[in-house]
Amino acid sequence: MIGIFDSGVGGLTVAKSIIQQIPGYSIIYFGDTARTPYGTKSHETVVKYTLEAADFLVNKGAQTLIMACNTASSVAFEKVKKRYDIPVFEVISPAVDLAIEKTKNNHIGVIGTRATINSCVYEQKIKKNSPPAKVYSYPCPLLVPLVEEGWFNKPETRMIVKKYLHPLKVRQIDTLILGCTHYPILKKIIQRKMGKQVNIIDSSLAVAQEVEQFLAVHPELDNKMDKKGDEIFFVSDITSQFEKTANMILKKKIFLKQAVT
Amino acid sequence: MIGIFDSGVGGLTVAKSIIQQIPGYSIIYFGDTARTPYGTKSHETVVKYTLEAADFLVNKGAQTLIMACNTASSVAFEKVKKRYDIPVFEVISPAVDLAIEKTKNNHIGVIGTRATINSCVYEQKIKKNSPPAKVYSYPCPLLVPLVEEGWFNKPETRMIVKKYLHPLKVRQIDTLILGCTHYPILKKIIQRKMGKQVNIIDSSLAVAQEVEQFLAVHPELDNKMDKKGDEIFFVSDITSQFEKTANMILKKKIFLKQAVT
Repeated sequence: MIGIFDSGVGGLTVAKSIIQQIPGYSIIYFGDTARTPYGTKSHETVVKYTLEAADFLVNKGAQTLIMACNTASSVAFEKVKKRYDIPVFEVISPAVDLAIEKTKNNHIGVIGTRATINSCVYEQKIKKNSPPAKVYSYPCPLLVPLVEEGWFNKPETRMIVKKYLHPLKVRQIDTLILGCTHYPILKKIIQRKMGKQVNIIDSSLAVAQEVEQFLAVHPELDNKMDKKGDEIFFVSDITSQFEKTANMILKKKIFLKQAVT
Repeated sequence: MIGIFDSGVGGLTVAKSIIQQIPGYSIIYFGDTARTPYGTKSHETVVKYTLEAADFLVNKGAQTLIMACNTASSVAFEKVKKRYDIPVFEVISPAVDLAIEKTKNNHIGVIGTRATINSCVYEQKIKKNSPPAKVYSYPCPLLVPLVEEGWFNKPETRMIVKKYLHPLKVRQIDTLILGCTHYPILKKIIQRKMGKQVNIIDSSLAVAQEVEQFLAVHPELDNKMDKKGDEIFFVSDITSQFEKTANMILKKKIFLKQAVT
């Protein structure tokens, strides 16, 4: 089973990409909705919550882990990776690789939660792999609650997106990384505000492609993977709003189970 | 010491009212910022978090408790009250009493988080005390993140407030209860959108007046209260954004301490 976790509904964009990219692989999802969002919390708190979430999924039988939360990926990846002897993926590196591949003018923008942007993880990774790149990063903290409310295409959402993207527009970036797994849901609005000449890098697609490639070159692991096509969704707090938004993202009705971490 | 707690920064409006209404009384505040917001979470989760927060304040020496969080007040008040032999105040009843006193046409509106509105606590209390009243309740979940971001008077905030208040405008209410301690920060915008003929009931002021009256008729408790004018602020997660917003609400710089619950 592929374990996927996020602080809330955002990681469902990764679950959706996995289901589309490698159909048939069983997935087990955990959304830490009792403590969402992570993006406004401190480093130490995010590390603690992330390790608890990862333990939960491994105990439930996850054979590989995807940290489908940029905040968790940016501050807790090394700690999670060291803790288990199964493959662990984060959502940052695949997006960084893709951005470097796509950019032509070496001006790359990154948007994310305050915790992700403050960690400078995107900037460091981009600079390490492509030293001449110029990176412009901005936090967009209100986009997570807007998505969680299901306000995917309201005028207020479009206005807030426009306000957040304004400083990036003036930087003449040609590539923009959506550094939060909630943001692919707003991809169309973001693309429209940035203009069609800007490459929008969706980390949920990027990580799904990376998992597919990894399994292709690791048949010893791939052969052991559960391919019954099960989809199990755990949350630490069941609310009707989560169900509603989850159904909107996955475009189907899912059954939620209560997780106890 | 007067113990005040909330899921985050919202309860600071109550702290501010207490400091203004009964200056000199020492206060100890706890904001559960590691798990904020409560308003989108389930009943059971909110009860659990609230009891932990109350225990923390009582262990730190609180001689009376104010549940400065509508979500916690609406779902956990009775449990907190039974647990201790000190006076416990919640923010709902004082606002309800004031609304009933002020309304002339008996059309009362209530806005709050989804958890508060779903609990129907305002509606039940108003109907109990004033059976002919008509109550119109609407959840406004995005106002909490907007306040926590410090977006107190941005055009996007005004647009979202307008959208949320629209169904109340058409009901011809003459009194509106701000059923969330974050909302007094948006009081001016709300007053403007509703029109000056509508009474806006600020629960932070209402509860401060109730505490003052209670102490006036309970001198045996009042004599024991700590009146050194100390102001101690604990949070379960210290972030620079919380400090910034807290300073904006209290209009002074405060020192935050890390709480371990």
